Amino acid sequence: MTDQWDKIIIGIDPGTNLMGYGILGVRRGKPQMIALGVIKLSRFESHYLRLRRIYERVLGLVEQYLPDEMAIEAPFFGKNVQSMLKLGRAQGVAMAAALARDVPITEYEPRKIKMAITGNGAASKEQVREMLRRILNIDSSMLENAELDATDGLAAALCHHYESMRPQIAAGPKSWKEFIAKNPERVK
Amino acid sequence: MTDQWDKIIIGIDPGTNLMGYGILGVRRGKPQMIALGVIKLSRFESHYLRLRRIYERVLGLVEQYLPDEMAIEAPFFGKNVQSMLKLGRAQGVAMAAALARDVPITEYEPRKIKMAITGNGAASKEQVREMLRRILNIDSSMLENAELDATDGLAAALCHHYESMRPQIAAGPKSWKEFIAKNPERVK
Repeated sequence: MTDQWDKIIIGIDPGTNLMGYGILGVRRGKPQMIALGVIKLSRFESHYLRLRRIYERVLGLVEQYLPDEMAIEAPFFGKNVQSMLKLGRAQGVAMAAALARDVPITEYEPRKIKMAITGNGAASKEQVREMLRRILNIDSSMLENAELDATDGLAAALCHHYESMRPQIAAGPKSWKEFIAKNPERVK
Repeated sequence: MTDQWDKIIIGIDPGTNLMGYGILGVRRGKPQMIALGVIKLSRFESHYLRLRRIYERVLGLVEQYLPDEMAIEAPFFGKNVQSMLKLGRAQGVAMAAALARDVPITEYEPRKIKMAITGNGAASKEQVREMLRRILNIDSSMLENAELDATDGLAAALCHHYESMRPQIAAGPKSWKEFIAKNPERVK
């Protein structure tokens, strides 16, 4: 696998009921889908069994595909503190599986991923899937059977690929707060 | 270690700046402190390095002390969704380390732990530490140097020990909702 690709990215869309994943291979700057799927968690009643399932499956994927990097879809806002705690745990165990094998992690907000794939930060899951199909030249029949959360995982991986292809520009301060922090002598 | 004790419990108090832990050995129903300490995270700037540190250190403790069970202090409410997501991730990676070695996890609310140790759900950290010192007959000099978060980890372990010593009573329904769920035929 490692010989065939210059880089392999695993994309994860973690949830407490379903976790989507996509494996993207990059060769000479060209991305291609290697695999995608969904880890179903709703059949496990216990919260711990779900977390354990996420950990084991993500670790399994990491050991099977030996990704160089992990991209994770991570919403920063949620309905309430309870759901965010649960989401944080699901993200945490998925991240632990990557950290356990020295795979660096980058997280992307859902809006950022949609923007990178479709040019529209408010695109629907269906629109994201359609764009993925076109960009990666995936056979329609393959995607029709895939759950939408699986393509979200693949979208995170592709978004990460685009980000790593971007030239690193020495960016100016993004905010007044950052400007002050970087230039304390210029504030009187 | 396993020969000396009937059961070993690891107690964890996970935070994003400090993670406290305590190892409790139980022999013939009598609990005794084996170790306690703190994993300092504030020196790691990156969120991922912190999560990685938690995972590696908790896994290290699990492999060193071979605990039979893990007790985790888990607040269910927090200031805001952002802090709960971070806390959830910290809990998630700590849990992953236990799940990776088949150690079952039980979580306890801070109030429940304080109540179990001191009889007062609103006890201060200092009061919890003093009670731990008395109950476990720990040398004062050992605890004075220990950070308060470390004794919180030990308190979670002791709380779990008390809970597992309690006779399992077939409890009645805790709420009307639970009663209905268990007795659908009695609702007209």
